[in-house]
Amino acid sequence: MFYEERELHDVRRLLYPASIAVVGVSDSERSFGNFVLSNLASFDYAGELHLVSRSTAEVQGRACVASIDDLPEGIDVAVLTVPASVVVESVRACGRRGIAAAVVFASGFSEAGEEGERQQAELAQAAEEGGVMVVGPNCMGLSNLADGIPLTFEPQMLGSEYTVKLRQEARPGVAVVAQSGAMSNNLRDALIANGLPVMYAISTGNEAVLSIEDHLAHLVDEPRVGIITLYVEQVRYPELFLAQVARAREAGKPIVMLMPGRSARARDAVQSHTGALAGNHAAACVRLRGEGVLLVDTLDELFDVTAILHKFPEPSAAPPALLTNSGAIKNCALDLGEDIGLTFPGFSPSTIAGLETILPSYAVAENPLDFTTISAKDPQAYTRLCNVVVDDQGVGGVMVAMMGGPRVGQLDKAKHLVPAIAQCTKPSALIILGDQTELIPEFRQAIEESGVPFFRSVDRAVRAFARVERYGRSMRRKRVESSRRQLPSLPSSGLHAEYQCKQWLSAMGISFPSGRLATSVDEAADIARQVGYPVVIKAQSADLPHKSDVGGVVVGLADEEALRHGWDCLQSAVATARPDLTLDGVLVEAMGRGGVELIVGARRDPQWGPVVMVGLGGVWIEALKDVRLLPADSELADISQEILSLKGAALLTGLRGSEPVDITAIAEVVSRVGEVMQSCPEVEEVDINPLVAYPDGVVALDALVVTSPQQLGES
Amino acid sequence: MFYEERELHDVRRLLYPASIAVVGVSDSERSFGNFVLSNLASFDYAGELHLVSRSTAEVQGRACVASIDDLPEGIDVAVLTVPASVVVESVRACGRRGIAAAVVFASGFSEAGEEGERQQAELAQAAEEGGVMVVGPNCMGLSNLADGIPLTFEPQMLGSEYTVKLRQEARPGVAVVAQSGAMSNNLRDALIANGLPVMYAISTGNEAVLSIEDHLAHLVDEPRVGIITLYVEQVRYPELFLAQVARAREAGKPIVMLMPGRSARARDAVQSHTGALAGNHAAACVRLRGEGVLLVDTLDELFDVTAILHKFPEPSAAPPALLTNSGAIKNCALDLGEDIGLTFPGFSPSTIAGLETILPSYAVAENPLDFTTISAKDPQAYTRLCNVVVDDQGVGGVMVAMMGGPRVGQLDKAKHLVPAIAQCTKPSALIILGDQTELIPEFRQAIEESGVPFFRSVDRAVRAFARVERYGRSMRRKRVESSRRQLPSLPSSGLHAEYQCKQWLSAMGISFPSGRLATSVDEAADIARQVGYPVVIKAQSADLPHKSDVGGVVVGLADEEALRHGWDCLQSAVATARPDLTLDGVLVEAMGRGGVELIVGARRDPQWGPVVMVGLGGVWIEALKDVRLLPADSELADISQEILSLKGAALLTGLRGSEPVDITAIAEVVSRVGEVMQSCPEVEEVDINPLVAYPDGVVALDALVVTSPQQLGES
Repeated sequence: MFYEERELHDVRRLLYPASIAVVGVSDSERSFGNFVLSNLASFDYAGELHLVSRSTAEVQGRACVASIDDLPEGIDVAVLTVPASVVVESVRACGRRGIAAAVVFASGFSEAGEEGERQQAELAQAAEEGGVMVVGPNCMGLSNLADGIPLTFEPQMLGSEYTVKLRQEARPGVAVVAQSGAMSNNLRDALIANGLPVMYAISTGNEAVLSIEDHLAHLVDEPRVGIITLYVEQVRYPELFLAQVARAREAGKPIVMLMPGRSARARDAVQSHTGALAGNHAAACVRLRGEGVLLVDTLDELFDVTAILHKFPEPSAAPPALLTNSGAIKNCALDLGEDIGLTFPGFSPSTIAGLETILPSYAVAENPLDFTTISAKDPQAYTRLCNVVVDDQGVGGVMVAMMGGPRVGQLDKAKHLVPAIAQCTKPSALIILGDQTELIPEFRQAIEESGVPFFRSVDRAVRAFARVERYGRSMRRKRVESSRRQLPSLPSSGLHAEYQCKQWLSAMGISFPSGRLATSVDEAADIARQVGYPVVIKAQSADLPHKSDVGGVVVGLADEEALRHGWDCLQSAVATARPDLTLDGVLVEAMGRGGVELIVGARRDPQWGPVVMVGLGGVWIEALKDVRLLPADSELADISQEILSLKGAALLTGLRGSEPVDITAIAEVVSRVGEVMQSCPEVEEVDINPLVAYPDGVVALDALVVTSPQQLGES
Repeated sequence: MFYEERELHDVRRLLYPASIAVVGVSDSERSFGNFVLSNLASFDYAGELHLVSRSTAEVQGRACVASIDDLPEGIDVAVLTVPASVVVESVRACGRRGIAAAVVFASGFSEAGEEGERQQAELAQAAEEGGVMVVGPNCMGLSNLADGIPLTFEPQMLGSEYTVKLRQEARPGVAVVAQSGAMSNNLRDALIANGLPVMYAISTGNEAVLSIEDHLAHLVDEPRVGIITLYVEQVRYPELFLAQVARAREAGKPIVMLMPGRSARARDAVQSHTGALAGNHAAACVRLRGEGVLLVDTLDELFDVTAILHKFPEPSAAPPALLTNSGAIKNCALDLGEDIGLTFPGFSPSTIAGLETILPSYAVAENPLDFTTISAKDPQAYTRLCNVVVDDQGVGGVMVAMMGGPRVGQLDKAKHLVPAIAQCTKPSALIILGDQTELIPEFRQAIEESGVPFFRSVDRAVRAFARVERYGRSMRRKRVESSRRQLPSLPSSGLHAEYQCKQWLSAMGISFPSGRLATSVDEAADIARQVGYPVVIKAQSADLPHKSDVGGVVVGLADEEALRHGWDCLQSAVATARPDLTLDGVLVEAMGRGGVELIVGARRDPQWGPVVMVGLGGVWIEALKDVRLLPADSELADISQEILSLKGAALLTGLRGSEPVDITAIAEVVSRVGEVMQSCPEVEEVDINPLVAYPDGVVALDALVVTSPQQLGES
């Protein structure tokens, strides 16, 4: 199933309905319709409420009408608790009554094979014709908790008292949006249990009409929302989605997102789960990260990062400090940090000097910091420790990990440690060890009231802070705006001959070996004399992409005699293999020196746009898949960092005493390829393989560019 | 600080004292001595209790004596709450009164620099002279909770009611032993909060006298203990430790252990934390895993694996199934599984058939299993699902992950799901999503009473089951007993010349190129004729280990003329570089074919004994550290699995359409090197570099053996 980009829907009548019709109520207490009704009652829904029942004239003391067609005109939302078989006709009826939105719980649509897909298409069409915004199908509905409007059959544990509590909440809260109903509930409950104010919990299901993008667009503008937490299996409208991400970034609202699909099995499962066609997961991740989405890998990370960013939506780009009174915790954090690529930064000299005035002589003023037992005797030391550490410019946040301890220790922490962490100006968290060990109510209350991100697990805190640090770094990423250079146009769409690609990319400043196209052996000899022997000769035609396979490349020609002999061999080999083909000529080039071989490339994903790739060549890419993917607008420093993150980066930085190669020159090629992808929408693919790196620069030995005729027409 | 192996101490008088002296009580309520006293009181300690106070004659209504020398003879344990400066004289006094054991809390010993180390040596000597088993120093003491005897100053949240509860406990419990006091408390509290019966919580501190090995030896024999959970920074007596591990394995008691030190920073920190000299962490891990210790990487894993193995101490070797009613959870688990190397196995045809009788038609009978909403209507489906899945021979355990849901759903789960999991015969766990969301008391109680391992996090459960699976596999590991072959003896200790090493290793069945030692150029020509040109010649002397550096190796000699010329070059180059040296001769060998280069080696760690290594050669080992370490007694199948776990394993299994190499032949070389290390204690090190692998076998091109004279004398 493919989706065209489209206009956004305005979801306000859905989220803030002045009138609701519940369709499908009955005498049975345990029907979905009655659950919906009970939920609205438990939140004291104060708008107009209409009931539709085929079977009864009254439910819970309220009169019912027999059909949607009997409802008054212009109701905001109809909640359809009807079987799949009558969903389409119900939506048509909603359209006839001018109902703005319909929530469809029923399953059996695009997640259920071809017949289901057909039905969903019919549903979408009925919705469009009637002007009804459909939520679902195959969803659990949505709850506007901020205003106390649950539109779900899930029996609610919360009620109007939660909305009262939210109204007293000074902080902007969390909006949860998930394509899975169970996950929307899971996120809502987990975040609330962790003391976060959850304003909205929205499940979008199969997204026949309304999709996650429509909700995002609204939530970015909703002042009661400060952070958006997403579970997404498929982004159906990448351009719309990325546009909302950009708006959220400008509004200072973090988007934290879990999107399974790193593994092939998860991608398959996603497809059968919600009927979504998994797009290119890797390309999606690159683009989303590049635009400022904080992508996490696991559910716990989704909870935990949300908690930290809710309190600190604009983290710094530096890694955190860990303060603990246990050397063992310090050791464990160091190991886990190394496993996941989080380095605890060293303290500045002034921080060390400051700590030394607080710590006993036998303590070591380093990060992670084992502050020993000083807080037992002097609980006010907590504040001094946090202040000194958080002031360090190299420190991006503060975690404090301790046992809860006996009652007196917990009271100390409630009184001194919690406020010390609460007043930190950088992402900070309290970790109370002992896993699920109960804490005294006074301590729990102090933590809840402070809003301090609270963990029971060092593992989880360290993993979450690693994500937050990377996010902080990515938010500081400078983008390279494409200069929209005037490149010579490529002669046609599709594949191009190597010499054409090289000419074209040369104009972008990418270095190739000296040489040019020869159409006769004498011309070839002239070129070889100019560039110097030894040379390589390569048959050139856009119709001969795999020229090596047919004897179209001869390397290592040491002198003119060898060149003339090689020329003849090449011509006859190509003529034998491809008698139909007329060559444009033969590319004569100086042989490259030996160096470290890399691959630089780019692809334009049909949904996600351009993604640039850099990797080590040869067996590295084949055996290790040792490549890094980047946004096309990455700046040099970020590209260099990605290059240094290659598994085989040691090959570049000077192995066995060899000189390091020119990483910046590699990054420049990557950057220019990115620029090509940004400024030339007709370019589908670029491959530079190999790019040979030396201590003093790089040379691209071969290059391939693929263009598309459609895009060419548009550009 | 080095430790010689030594005899075990019998810790029974320490753990089950009939009489205790608390030394250092005072009028101050908040002194360590008084805390110890209060703790003993809170557990209703019923043995003899003696108090020593310099400052007062009575504390908490009990009479005090003024000094240890005033105590009666033969008390079991003295708890010394005295400053570091008087610890040594106190232990001497304990010795004079025949006190069996002393608990020393004071810090400032080997963890505090040279002066501290000196003091600790003095303490150890005083303890030995007086026959006093010292616990600590720098520890928080130890608690025998099973009998209600806390010997710690940490104010106890538990009391005698916990011991009463343990006495009613039918299951053997957990013993916690940690070299860190905070970690001992952390583990105790976390495991108790998770419903596990914790029988002992022991902190050993700097281990001046008693060490973790002494406690292990006792706990393996203690019938009330079924599993031992360890936090260890340094194993001081590896042989003793491994011997206890072997006994625990035979007794069917799992040992779950966290030992920081994967990162260099953690190893440094360990050293300063407890004054322990970090041994070879990698070698220790290989030996410990090889003997059946379940090593975990993080604290959460330590908690979680303990919970699973407490209920299921003998896990099967297969990976688990995951059952959930959320497709989203299935997707997340697939991704995390792939990240950490846990594959959810496919179900057998009969399992699939069985599931299809339970599931609706639109559900897919695969693992992880999304069993949809069937349990909402029919809670008894839980039992049928668990039964069908657990009977699958390819399934090693069962995780069930669901939201807690509303009250009625939680009651359903309490009544049906918890018993269904409890009766599983393989490691199984209940995961209730929603992180810290509160559950109704009836549900919590059902979980606690069932003893079912209980998680709130899919992440944690998946990580823990991955460890349990690997442990199950390792417990099924077959060991290769060394055949103690009679090898020709190596001529001397130290380095040996290549031809000698090759001769010697040939006797173990390792293949080298055809060839032998020549002492004249005519003899060399004879050998070359026999083995066939081209040949390589290599100067041979035990005193010339880096022969290539001085022109002592000439390769690719194509015929006799080249050989004679090469011979002269070699002789003159060596004579120039090392005029003092007399060669044993020159090794003449057939040149090897090209293949995939590996390195096979072994080292004898002074503390942990032999560890065998296999890796890919060249840049792989230098840039990626792409090696696997194994126990010397590994069997072929395990070695092959490790070889296939190399990052660059694709080079061995047929990259770019090339034929796969002979993995078994590589494994055989590794196995034989292991056998050498086992049967020849004088061998310190073996290096085969390169070992060239082909589709039809392997050839070792170079080999080095280092022997030690000391070990030779002993063997």
